Amino acid sequence: MLNIKRLGMSDAALLIDGARQHAIDIGVPMCIAVVDESGNLIAFERMDGGKASSIGVAQNKAYTAGAARKATHEYNAACVPGNLVFGIHTELSVVGGGLPVWADNDCVGGIGLSSGTPDQDIACAQAGIDFWYAHHS
Amino acid sequence: MLNIKRLGMSDAALLIDGARQHAIDIGVPMCIAVVDESGNLIAFERMDGGKASSIGVAQNKAYTAGAARKATHEYNAACVPGNLVFGIHTELSVVGGGLPVWADNDCVGGIGLSSGTPDQDIACAQAGIDFWYAHHS
Amino acid sequence: MLNIKRLGMSDAALLIDGARQHAIDIGVPMCIAVVDESGNLIAFERMDGGKASSIGVAQNKAYTAGAARKATHEYNAACVPGNLVFGIHTELSVVGGGLPVWADNDCVGGIGLSSGTPDQDIACAQAGIDFWYAHHS
Amino acid sequence: MLNIKRLGMSDAALLIDGARQHAIDIGVPMCIAVVDESGNLIAFERMDGGKASSIGVAQNKAYTAGAARKATHEYNAACVPGNLVFGIHTELSVVGGGLPVWADNDCVGGIGLSSGTPDQDIACAQAGIDFWYAHHS
Repeated sequence: MLNIKRLGMSDAALLIDGARQHAIDIGVPMCIAVVDESGNLIAFERMDGGKASSIGVAQNKAYTAGAARKATHEYNAACVPGNLVFGIHTELSVVGGGLPVWADNDCVGGIGLSSGTPDQDIACAQAGIDFWYAHHS
Repeated sequence: MLNIKRLGMSDAALLIDGARQHAIDIGVPMCIAVVDESGNLIAFERMDGGKASSIGVAQNKAYTAGAARKATHEYNAACVPGNLVFGIHTELSVVGGGLPVWADNDCVGGIGLSSGTPDQDIACAQAGIDFWYAHHS
Repeated sequence: MLNIKRLGMSDAALLIDGARQHAIDIGVPMCIAVVDESGNLIAFERMDGGKASSIGVAQNKAYTAGAARKATHEYNAACVPGNLVFGIHTELSVVGGGLPVWADNDCVGGIGLSSGTPDQDIACAQAGIDFWYAHHS
Repeated sequence: MLNIKRLGMSDAALLIDGARQHAIDIGVPMCIAVVDESGNLIAFERMDGGKASSIGVAQNKAYTAGAARKATHEYNAACVPGNLVFGIHTELSVVGGGLPVWADNDCVGGIGLSSGTPDQDIACAQAGIDFWYAHHS
């Protein structure tokens, strides 16, 4: 039997709080998704003004980051024609804005943002993680 | 041109707060989804212990209730062989636990719950709506 | 942060060993799937002669049992027109042959069988669980 | 009428044994899938620590290799904009890590690995084939 560490709902709320605050600071209403280490959705928030088309995108970014334990922009860098990773974008999200959440050496989940530019999405995801690190118990 | 009334993120948070409180009261951790009047997800929460298989089910219930402006258990009652509604269960959720949210005569969204029995899911959805009615501005 | 107990690969192998032995005993080559508590596939085996159409069915049964923590035949019993559960068969498997795997009070995964009659599938799933209980560490 | 040669379950077990051993040697827990010459899954194993996001990817690689009788990295090399093969990545896996299994001049199945780099995935797939060649009857 295995023992697994994963994000709970209070962790997801902190991640979203931190990401939302940064989204407010830069003036871009976002879709924010948090998944556990198995890729299953824990929490989602569409800020007022967040794009309807970003609802699924944010979730796919979070899924990729949490279940594959890798930032979506890292997949993006490798997913170019001629690279053996090319093609993975049909199965996972390679659009910047998804970050894995690590606790020591365990990937315990992922956060995905969508509605801004990829750089804005990444910055909000990172702000969520920073806030979680500072406040979770 | 149309002017549409719809739930915002603060409304969704109230709906979830009320539903979560009832779920805690009856001791059943739930997946809770809120959509707007177009059927698009606004917010989602999987309480610690909510079932992974309920993530999609809760969202489909909320989608049906908000976009079709009808409780899923009302579809359920009509969705019996021989009734001309039968078959709709392949396109919409007819499992009890999804309720439309009305503001005066406008359907402004929907709430869907999953992880308990349909009766428990319905009760939590109603508790969310009651809480929202009492507190939204 | 949450701590989760789940089946590992050695557990999945035991579950399959027990199910396969019963399938051999009754002379019905089976598709056998084991998932973890999040519904994600751990192991799958199609015995020589197992039906190609059962590959997905066995996995869906295991997913339902593990992620929803309920035997598929229990869903089947409730999933009749007029019951508020009716319709769930479009999202989860309600075909007999999927059983949750419990360790004390935790659902740690699920096993699903397909290729025989539902009663045969259920008997093999139970044989897998019995074998696992007797041998896992 | 046709007579088809295909991998059986004992072959799939050998392929997985060889692939798993190499995965252990390089320290990367893998998802390992084996399909028959029709592309249908025979066996699957997620080693403890294998990525949840690799469950489907490994199966798609095996499917492509077995049913299209070509290594996924060969498709990858051709799947570049301007080449008439480009676009096939939306239907088949072109991510390195899937190898067809040949018996004399017949493609009898395929093996697909995922969780490492494509080069690691390919090396494990090849190790599985080498082990099978050395031990199958």
